[in-house]
Amino acid sequence: MTRTLPTALTATAVVAASSANLGPGFDSMGLAVSLYDEIIVETTESGLIVEVEGEGAGQVPLDANHLVVRAIERGLRETAVSAAGLIVRCRNDIPHSRGLGSSAAAVVGGLAAANGLAAQAGASPMTAERLIQVSSEFEGHPDNAAAAVLGGAVVSWTEAGAGEARFAAAPIRLHPDINLFTAVPQVRSSTAETRILLPEWVSHADARFNLSRAALLVVALTERPDLLMAATEDVLHQPQRAAAMPASAEYLAVLRRCGVPAVLSGAGPAVLALSTRAELPAEALEFGSRNGFATARMAVGDAVKWTSGVTVRS
Amino acid sequence: MTRTLPTALTATAVVAASSANLGPGFDSMGLAVSLYDEIIVETTESGLIVEVEGEGAGQVPLDANHLVVRAIERGLRETAVSAAGLIVRCRNDIPHSRGLGSSAAAVVGGLAAANGLAAQAGASPMTAERLIQVSSEFEGHPDNAAAAVLGGAVVSWTEAGAGEARFAAAPIRLHPDINLFTAVPQVRSSTAETRILLPEWVSHADARFNLSRAALLVVALTERPDLLMAATEDVLHQPQRAAAMPASAEYLAVLRRCGVPAVLSGAGPAVLALSTRAELPAEALEFGSRNGFATARMAVGDAVKWTSGVTVRS
Repeated sequence: MTRTLPTALTATAVVAASSANLGPGFDSMGLAVSLYDEIIVETTESGLIVEVEGEGAGQVPLDANHLVVRAIERGLRETAVSAAGLIVRCRNDIPHSRGLGSSAAAVVGGLAAANGLAAQAGASPMTAERLIQVSSEFEGHPDNAAAAVLGGAVVSWTEAGAGEARFAAAPIRLHPDINLFTAVPQVRSSTAETRILLPEWVSHADARFNLSRAALLVVALTERPDLLMAATEDVLHQPQRAAAMPASAEYLAVLRRCGVPAVLSGAGPAVLALSTRAELPAEALEFGSRNGFATARMAVGDAVKWTSGVTVRS
Repeated sequence: MTRTLPTALTATAVVAASSANLGPGFDSMGLAVSLYDEIIVETTESGLIVEVEGEGAGQVPLDANHLVVRAIERGLRETAVSAAGLIVRCRNDIPHSRGLGSSAAAVVGGLAAANGLAAQAGASPMTAERLIQVSSEFEGHPDNAAAAVLGGAVVSWTEAGAGEARFAAAPIRLHPDINLFTAVPQVRSSTAETRILLPEWVSHADARFNLSRAALLVVALTERPDLLMAATEDVLHQPQRAAAMPASAEYLAVLRRCGVPAVLSGAGPAVLALSTRAELPAEALEFGSRNGFATARMAVGDAVKWTSGVTVRS
């Protein structure tokens, strides 16, 4: 039985950006970073109003096709409630189409906002496991979604059985000596477009290469930052994307030549460096600024949060 | 400058069996188990005498082609010493050609015995890193060799640069709740033969499958034994070997149907179960004994040890 929510309920969700496809961990390993989108939702008598501030303003649809709205609607169905009308306010700090998980954040944030509404109506909110499942269904892969739900670093996987795919993830503890740096270019990208560059077949040797490095990456991220250079090597997606984003590929090469472990963030074009140094080398920073990258140190992103009412972000 | 060792030096090496190719961790993840070979070597004035007791007796060459002898000679060269003559005694508990790393043990044990001789002549013994490198060169892959050198569980990888391949490994701490069981069939196998069954090309999706599970296997082995079922799934080598070893494939299926995470040990036909239960289910044990498997609980294998003199094994 679906219950209609009373009007004038409000809820706020705050959700982090994420880097997925970490080096060898394509479609599996993800890491939340400290850029956040905030979603404030209010139930009304009818209609839909969508407002977007910050990233994506003026570029995304302000109707039921808006990804956050679709996620809220999905979340309300999941929790067996519905709203006669909604006002949805998005305050976005996560850049779009750069490989920082803005769409996963929109979905996870929308679902979390629905949780915040449903909880006020006495309905059971979705668990973290359920949030990962439902958000990954939107995404098609669980690495960004799981990082956005759980925060921190995750290993995620997909169980494709007879029915629907089941998505799951396990958190891993990032070693405290690892500092994160994102380098975000002006140029936009689309995951859907760049995914086409990946081959359908790969050599068994290349598959073995990546699986050994993916296992090693878990060891390096949790216990052995000294092994991050070897652990971030990949042959299954980064080389194939290089032609589509030459500046990012070169930035990666510059960073690695300077001894800084670095990977493409998601499908790019943003770059993520994982370094035990407190600053990136001058040569790398110079390359970045000369080529239109905004390079910044990030903290590890927090798990998605939802609250009842309107919370002003600190 | 190579120095000739004096006669009547003796050294003893003890080296563990190992399971490699752990589930999704093909050519990368290995685990030492508590079956040991012992090698006792003595320098003489000339000639070569090889004695083998236990596994492999009467089946391996008793001359310079013996794998332990080749490894000792290689180890002596590495440490810049030589022997005019040798007596080599092998006391083997590790079954041959079953997928329990008997050849890696022979190589690592031979190198370690050479270390034991070299150290008495004031030469620098090979480090663990060097033992992994040299033994993996014999093997072609580092997973058994690294487990035999380091003991416990390892993630190993290969760096194929311009020159020779560089082999390396990192130890991981096995969660104390995980119990190990080996099931060893009467039937022998040859890694060289069964490796031929593996395809040269695999789908990008299958490569992604295994890399996500290999990353997960590190998480499961170290922190989350509850995830071992999902973490031991593989599509890159076990299904391809099933036709060559139907009883092992069925034993795996029986164990997994009973909720016991199990993998092929190395290239098979032995099977390794990793369970949080103290015993295997009766249905599985019954299948094993009906099909000629000797199933036994094992401890985690120790790192290779070498000592000067003849040590009687406890």
